Amino acid sequence: MNEKAFQDYWQQNQCWGCGNNEHGLHIKSYWDVDESICVWQPNTYHMAGPAGFLNGGIIATIIDCHSICTAIANEYRIERRDLDSKPLIWCVTASLKLHYLLPTPVDKPLTLKAKVKEKEKKKTLINCSLISNKLETVKAEVLAVRVNPDKWYK
Amino acid sequence: MNEKAFQDYWQQNQCWGCGNNEHGLHIKSYWDVDESICVWQPNTYHMAGPAGFLNGGIIATIIDCHSICTAIANEYRIERRDLDSKPLIWCVTASLKLHYLLPTPVDKPLTLKAKVKEKEKKKTLINCSLISNKLETVKAEVLAVRVNPDKWYK
Repeated sequence: MNEKAFQDYWQQNQCWGCGNNEHGLHIKSYWDVDESICVWQPNTYHMAGPAGFLNGGIIATIIDCHSICTAIANEYRIERRDLDSKPLIWCVTASLKLHYLLPTPVDKPLTLKAKVKEKEKKKTLINCSLISNKLETVKAEVLAVRVNPDKWYK
Repeated sequence: MNEKAFQDYWQQNQCWGCGNNEHGLHIKSYWDVDESICVWQPNTYHMAGPAGFLNGGIIATIIDCHSICTAIANEYRIERRDLDSKPLIWCVTASLKLHYLLPTPVDKPLTLKAKVKEKEKKKTLINCSLISNKLETVKAEVLAVRVNPDKWYK
C-alpha cells in the first residue's frame, strides 16, 4: 500500500475522523481490489469505561469515516475519474448501524474492511468490519448519500 | 439540575466519552422524570468534513455514552439503589443504530434526550434523540446489555 490514501486527495476535508484536522484521528483508506482497507492504531486513552478496551464511539467514528470515504471513492471509480479530479464528489452519512460482537483491545492495530453492498442512484450501502487480532469485533452497515459539495464546502 | 450526574458516581469509569479521562468528552447525564438529559458543547474542531458541522462519530460517541449510562442508571432505579451503592452495576453496548436527519451545527450546545423503550432481563433498549437549536438532528436506538463488572473492572 504505497499509493496515496483516498483522504490524501481531498485536502478540503477537515473531518475529525479522517481529514486535515490537527486534533483528529487521521485514518487512511485504500482500495484492495473490490474492498477498501484501513489500518489504524488507537491511542491508549481512547478507552471504553474499563481500561484496555477501545471506546465504542471511536469505533463508530473510524467505521463511519472509512465507509463514507469508500462510498466517495466508489463514485469516482464508477465515473472512471481520478480521486482529485474536478468537480469534487462528496457523500454524507444517512444511517450507521453497528453490532459490537466482542470487546476490541485498545492497544493493538486495527483493520477495517469495507465493501459496497448496494448502489442505487445517490445511495451507497456499505458493509464494514472491524478486525482486531484476526477476530471480527464489530460489524457495521453504513448508508451513504451523495450530496452537492457546493452546499457543504463554501 | 444541581444534583450530581450519573457519571459522577462511577469514579472507576475511564471512558473517553463520559468518564475520568483527561483527553475525553466528559458528558454528564441526569434524570428528568422518566427520561434522561445531557447538555453538551462540542469543540469547534469536532467537525465533519466541511467546517461548521459536528462529526458523525462524535455524535455516535455522545449518544452511545448517554444511552448506556441511562441504561445503567435505570438498573439502579429498578433495584431502588443509590448510584454509588455496591455492588457496581455495568452495561455495555450490543448495538447502536443512528439515523442522521439533519446536519448538526458544531458551534451550539446540544441536548440529548434518552428514554428506556424496552427492558427484558439483561437487555435495555434505549431511544435517544440529539437536539440542536430545537430541531431533532439525529435519532438513535441503543441496545445495552448488563454485564458482570468484575470481568471488566479488574
